[in-house]
Amino acid sequence: MDSLLKKIDVMKNPTVVGLDPTLEMMPASMKAEMFEKYGKNPEAVGKMFIKFNKEIIDSVEDIVPAVKPQIAMYEKYGIEGIKAYLETIEYASKKGMAVIGDIKRGDISSTAAAYAAHIGGTEIEGQAFDLWKEDWITVNPYLGIDGIQPFIDECNKKDRGVFILVKTSNPSSSQLQDILVNEKTIYERVAELVAEWGMQSMGTMGYSRIGAVVGATHKEQGEKLRKMMPHTFFLVPGYGAQGGTGTDLEGFFDKDKRGCIVNSSRGIIAAYKKNDKYGENVGEAARDAALAMKADLQY
Amino acid sequence: MDSLLKKIDVMKNPTVVGLDPTLEMMPASMKAEMFEKYGKNPEAVGKMFIKFNKEIIDSVEDIVPAVKPQIAMYEKYGIEGIKAYLETIEYASKKGMAVIGDIKRGDISSTAAAYAAHIGGTEIEGQAFDLWKEDWITVNPYLGIDGIQPFIDECNKKDRGVFILVKTSNPSSSQLQDILVNEKTIYERVAELVAEWGMQSMGTMGYSRIGAVVGATHKEQGEKLRKMMPHTFFLVPGYGAQGGTGTDLEGFFDKDKRGCIVNSSRGIIAAYKKNDKYGENVGEAARDAALAMKADLQY
Repeated sequence: MDSLLKKIDVMKNPTVVGLDPTLEMMPASMKAEMFEKYGKNPEAVGKMFIKFNKEIIDSVEDIVPAVKPQIAMYEKYGIEGIKAYLETIEYASKKGMAVIGDIKRGDISSTAAAYAAHIGGTEIEGQAFDLWKEDWITVNPYLGIDGIQPFIDECNKKDRGVFILVKTSNPSSSQLQDILVNEKTIYERVAELVAEWGMQSMGTMGYSRIGAVVGATHKEQGEKLRKMMPHTFFLVPGYGAQGGTGTDLEGFFDKDKRGCIVNSSRGIIAAYKKNDKYGENVGEAARDAALAMKADLQY
Repeated sequence: MDSLLKKIDVMKNPTVVGLDPTLEMMPASMKAEMFEKYGKNPEAVGKMFIKFNKEIIDSVEDIVPAVKPQIAMYEKYGIEGIKAYLETIEYASKKGMAVIGDIKRGDISSTAAAYAAHIGGTEIEGQAFDLWKEDWITVNPYLGIDGIQPFIDECNKKDRGVFILVKTSNPSSSQLQDILVNEKTIYERVAELVAEWGMQSMGTMGYSRIGAVVGATHKEQGEKLRKMMPHTFFLVPGYGAQGGTGTDLEGFFDKDKRGCIVNSSRGIIAAYKKNDKYGENVGEAARDAALAMKADLQY
């Protein structure tokens, strides 16, 4: 997992592109082509998503260290969607990009162990199968440590990582996460647990393989969490479309400007829709948006 | 969703069979047959799971109203596993059983809307596709109402349901869920929210389409929650293998002995392994175990 941190250093870019395609986002000509070829069905949508994602990946692979496909967007289209999810991961990995599977799984111990196959792979009669191939995944902490431990075990075995939801970027994250208990919020209690769990799986660059999701929309909270969890790497959603900006995020980083990877989804992958000059050139628009984001994050 | 409640009444059996197959659980002859036919790979495991589940379904369909496949067990085997999950749902539905997809999804609003396709289906160019076909799914509340609302909307449109995690059955559920805030635990706060959200989607039998997961391993808590949430239908995991018994559950039901469906997984589907007399007769053992559970729940 240190390879992601190194890649961020080399590219001087703590950005991850969220590959969250929707049917509405697809260029008209691509839609027409795939519907023509496969019919108006989930298979066509899956093929669009693959083509669309490959265009994005090809256009940013040399400037962005990672991609984060959101599996919900693919699950929406059933088995054909999941095929597109898997092909996207495979393609990005081959290009040398780190892949964060935004799957937000979480369950009791034995079930969490099954989900941990996402990063740990599966064994059948002594033979190993790496069927999902995510380098990192996101995990929900509501069930407590026995639902987390199986992921930690796989992180250690495979040098992969997880990001545990601490403070999410959405407006109603406050409903549960901000409940105050003895002058500490629930998300701070979760943060303490995540920091503690993380000590079981330290990398070599000062950060643990057990990371945290901390929304860009919560400036003060992010700063406070950085101080509370000096060895916890942050995945930061909510930049751009959801409202966070580069200067809001200064305090999420450590003094060496490390410790975070910031996600942008629509702001990059649907950038072509915001300026007529791009026409249907999804890749060029994505690259320009990614470069603008990189510049915004260099404080 | 009232159809599940009615089916429970007719069968006089508030039981759901958890279809959580593992490779270790498969009968030796079935394993040998499928490995021979497909090779030692995920496809073979998927085929085993389908055959195994069909045997269980065939043997309990007239005495048990519902099945609950746990998607993690299938995701473990990648796309082939998910195919088995889908074929299991399709088969159980055709047999007239209600299907609870134990998927514990949960995300921010737009993403939750994509996950809601599990119960709501997907539209492509005006055409509807019901790709997952679960009647109910489980949902994680850590992100608050904007991550729940899309599921409620689909419940209303399709008369399907969700069970939101309130108090899970695992030992470390206490770590986060039992934190005390002003004399109320976090799970009680979640329970209040779930009860409130549930009023948006009432069925005709006194219960809401927005249900709650309440672990059988927490007797007093279950009784208290039943009083707090008189219109919330409970999915109760943790019976049997995890330690809950019939008498522990009296207080989870309402005065008419309604309001719950109790899950057993290994205790039913792996029952054949507990008594030599069954040999590899998975179905017969499952039926006997299901009948014993039904008897245990008739207080």
